Amino acid sequence: MDTETRKARASAWFRTLRDQIFTAFEAIEAESADIPVLPGAPAAPGRFQTREWTRTDATGEPGGGGTMGIMKGRVFEKVGVNISTVHGRFPDDFAKTIPGAEDDPSFFATGISLVAHMANPNVPAVHMNTRFLVTTKSWFGGGADLNPALPRAEDTADFHAAFKATCDAHGEDHWNRFSKWCESYFFIPHRNRPRGVGGIFYDYLECPDDAAFEANFAFTRAVGETFVRIFPKIVRRRMAEPWDAEARLALLRYRGLYAEFNLVYDRGTVFGLRTGGNTDAILMSLPPEARWD
Amino acid sequence: MDTETRKARASAWFRTLRDQIFTAFEAIEAESADIPVLPGAPAAPGRFQTREWTRTDATGEPGGGGTMGIMKGRVFEKVGVNISTVHGRFPDDFAKTIPGAEDDPSFFATGISLVAHMANPNVPAVHMNTRFLVTTKSWFGGGADLNPALPRAEDTADFHAAFKATCDAHGEDHWNRFSKWCESYFFIPHRNRPRGVGGIFYDYLECPDDAAFEANFAFTRAVGETFVRIFPKIVRRRMAEPWDAEARLALLRYRGLYAEFNLVYDRGTVFGLRTGGNTDAILMSLPPEARWD
Repeated sequence: MDTETRKARASAWFRTLRDQIFTAFEAIEAESADIPVLPGAPAAPGRFQTREWTRTDATGEPGGGGTMGIMKGRVFEKVGVNISTVHGRFPDDFAKTIPGAEDDPSFFATGISLVAHMANPNVPAVHMNTRFLVTTKSWFGGGADLNPALPRAEDTADFHAAFKATCDAHGEDHWNRFSKWCESYFFIPHRNRPRGVGGIFYDYLECPDDAAFEANFAFTRAVGETFVRIFPKIVRRRMAEPWDAEARLALLRYRGLYAEFNLVYDRGTVFGLRTGGNTDAILMSLPPEARWD
Repeated sequence: MDTETRKARASAWFRTLRDQIFTAFEAIEAESADIPVLPGAPAAPGRFQTREWTRTDATGEPGGGGTMGIMKGRVFEKVGVNISTVHGRFPDDFAKTIPGAEDDPSFFATGISLVAHMANPNVPAVHMNTRFLVTTKSWFGGGADLNPALPRAEDTADFHAAFKATCDAHGEDHWNRFSKWCESYFFIPHRNRPRGVGGIFYDYLECPDDAAFEANFAFTRAVGETFVRIFPKIVRRRMAEPWDAEARLALLRYRGLYAEFNLVYDRGTVFGLRTGGNTDAILMSLPPEARWD
């Protein structure tokens, strides 16, 4: 299979997954008539709004673009779902840090990125991102992790179990490696604590031949499908639970921590901001409201 | 004058200035009986609370410490005023980036750092910081800049005029250099805008002899005194102005921007967090409440 076919298949999948997420999350909003909501929450169930953007590469040439999707609803206080398919040439100093770009800085990247901040402090926030990168090498990366302000053992166990099953179906060591990678990646040194309660994080699943591409692409699709199945289940379990001002305050403080991680440590955020990426798309991950008090 | 005398005089000044700021800001709180306040604001005027902390140097030896001061009041939604006097040895890779520490990583640093987030969107937030550093060289640095969510020409003009007069009294080119340095330091590239409306920023005012020390120390004291005089004047001008929900929202969004700058770009914040500084003291600059929506 030629590289262009791989790029097209990956890109099409991320769009399909985006559509599935829109449908799944809007279905949850449609069930929100009788649940407790924030003061000022919309009376009608939320719907995703989309905005297209295009990118000019550092070389000055057109460099692809993407679609931001955002929903501000009754259950989802703010959820962003972005897809993008971009290409160009990495800046020289950055190229040195990317596998396969050391001598040729040309790149192609397609992916989906999602962060959901929930109105109800009992419902965990969540982050999910999967992507396919092409330099002189090509690889898949991604992950999903749960970010509750008020952790519930049952939710954490279900989230882990779902991704463990998916990992186990695609690679003997996947769960062991990718759950540990998630723990270390999302650790916040200056707070000496993890950002959330874990999940999986993986990168550099290289595709030197068709068999590897098919295996890694199948795993990446399964990660997306697992997310679409398990996260709505957890949301529905918690979305009608009442909360008080103390729980909301705990949520807002937790979101401060979440913002700290993204702005200080997250590789994609920091690199994107410092190299002229699409600021609105990059910062869609930031919480609608946060406190440091 | 020997170096220890210089260190002691600088350190004593920062404590004196801290006391003056406490007095000035608590006096403003004492005048807050009839002004509009936030829901949930304390009924009584705010008072500063202090907390001492000590530091262990990277070498494992005692490394000095500081005092955090924080007030959550009616006019001052959250203001942090920290003083610290620390010493030790810079990590090797960091030492290479610091004047006079290339071959000997020993350092001493004393200073004051202040960030005030105001309840009333009509009152500007403010940042002020001055410090004295000693390696094999020694120098003063610091600055003050105004950060209004809703800029007012009169406030900006008064703030600039006060620091221009102080600069002009201490060096022919001080205002030109330090006001421009402030503009470039506090520019937020990913938003293509400045963080605030300016002021001054200076660094590496070297003190190779007594005359230079006295001149730079006098300038640094004047910066602190100017701050204590001009900022309360602006606060009193605006603190009784009414505001509406739209203005509060503008304030919360502006604070998101402020947090972005501090977490992504601010040298002190990023270095402090990544090298095991006192997290609570470093992050006292973050806003009590912020929005990204």
